[in-house]
Amino acid sequence: MYEGVIQDLIDELGKLPGIGPKSAQRIAFHILGADPSQVRRLAEVLLDVKERIRFCAICGNVAEHEQCRICADPRRDPTVLCVVEEPKDVVAIEKTREFHGRYHVLGGAISPIDGIGPDDLRIRELLQRLADGTVKELILATDPNLEGEATATYLARLVKPLGVRVTRLASGLPVGGDLEYADEVTLGRALEGRRQLDV
Amino acid sequence: MYEGVIQDLIDELGKLPGIGPKSAQRIAFHILGADPSQVRRLAEVLLDVKERIRFCAICGNVAEHEQCRICADPRRDPTVLCVVEEPKDVVAIEKTREFHGRYHVLGGAISPIDGIGPDDLRIRELLQRLADGTVKELILATDPNLEGEATATYLARLVKPLGVRVTRLASGLPVGGDLEYADEVTLGRALEGRRQLDV
Repeated sequence: MYEGVIQDLIDELGKLPGIGPKSAQRIAFHILGADPSQVRRLAEVLLDVKERIRFCAICGNVAEHEQCRICADPRRDPTVLCVVEEPKDVVAIEKTREFHGRYHVLGGAISPIDGIGPDDLRIRELLQRLADGTVKELILATDPNLEGEATATYLARLVKPLGVRVTRLASGLPVGGDLEYADEVTLGRALEGRRQLDV
Repeated sequence: MYEGVIQDLIDELGKLPGIGPKSAQRIAFHILGADPSQVRRLAEVLLDVKERIRFCAICGNVAEHEQCRICADPRRDPTVLCVVEEPKDVVAIEKTREFHGRYHVLGGAISPIDGIGPDDLRIRELLQRLADGTVKELILATDPNLEGEATATYLARLVKPLGVRVTRLASGLPVGGDLEYADEVTLGRALEGRRQLDV
């Protein structure tokens, strides 16, 4: 309905995740009225990302160089390895400032329904990293959903013969949450994993 | 938290309307995994829009040439002029396929709270278009909200001395809607504007 290039922009924006036709139209008109330098910057950074970002040769996280910042940092504890599904999970854990070990990004979770099996994930690379015995603890921080749990169970069994300590993130009530609104599975897990208060 | 250019992309995306930090992150990772040609296309079309789109010299709609498609179309009735706030309103009315006249885009509505007065809108251009007496009917299709109504009233008074017929879009119940859920102002307008059924 719009003239050529505006409709093109709306179409291209509409291909991005979470952006429907109305949002795409709104963004397109915002761009029409925006400062040209801001739009140029957005276009540049889009191309930059595709050109410069690759995946860390060691952990599979996003990186600007051959190794990501975390793998290249000698202060990170090499004896603790945290396995996550996606690069954004690394960021989520880094934000806690509680973890000082290293990461391994699988690139997803086992999900037969989506046709993703163990061979589609970076599991071979994980086993290679565990081979020299440096890693003493493997924290399985895959998502607490069906696919993430299945992946964690699969990895725990796979790694068992190596004698590494394998742990899983605790399930329980979210801090600041409301007991009344917790689903029964979460509440059940919270009960099961209850801890003694030493007062 | 992310390495340089990814964070840059997330920041730039987050400046777009309706895109928060989480959506920006989601789109950024989509772009990381997307086909390079698709990303290049998006970047190109962003720059294209800023370079090639301007505003129609006659009606103020978005245009790729000096005049927009509608103003350049000799089949459009020059005696009926429909006044709207934004270019997207033109598209909305065009989609009805009920209107065959011409448009005038004000570029907004009078809104003292946002500091937008009559001089900030394309009202002078509207009066110039009405000066030669070609236009017989002026349809005020500004939004049915406070600002749009105020703008319509202002224009109706301004244009009165010219003797042009001035009309306003009907207010009433949306087609396919539910009487029960209509707000009282809309329902009141629908009652007020009730029409005789000739059966």
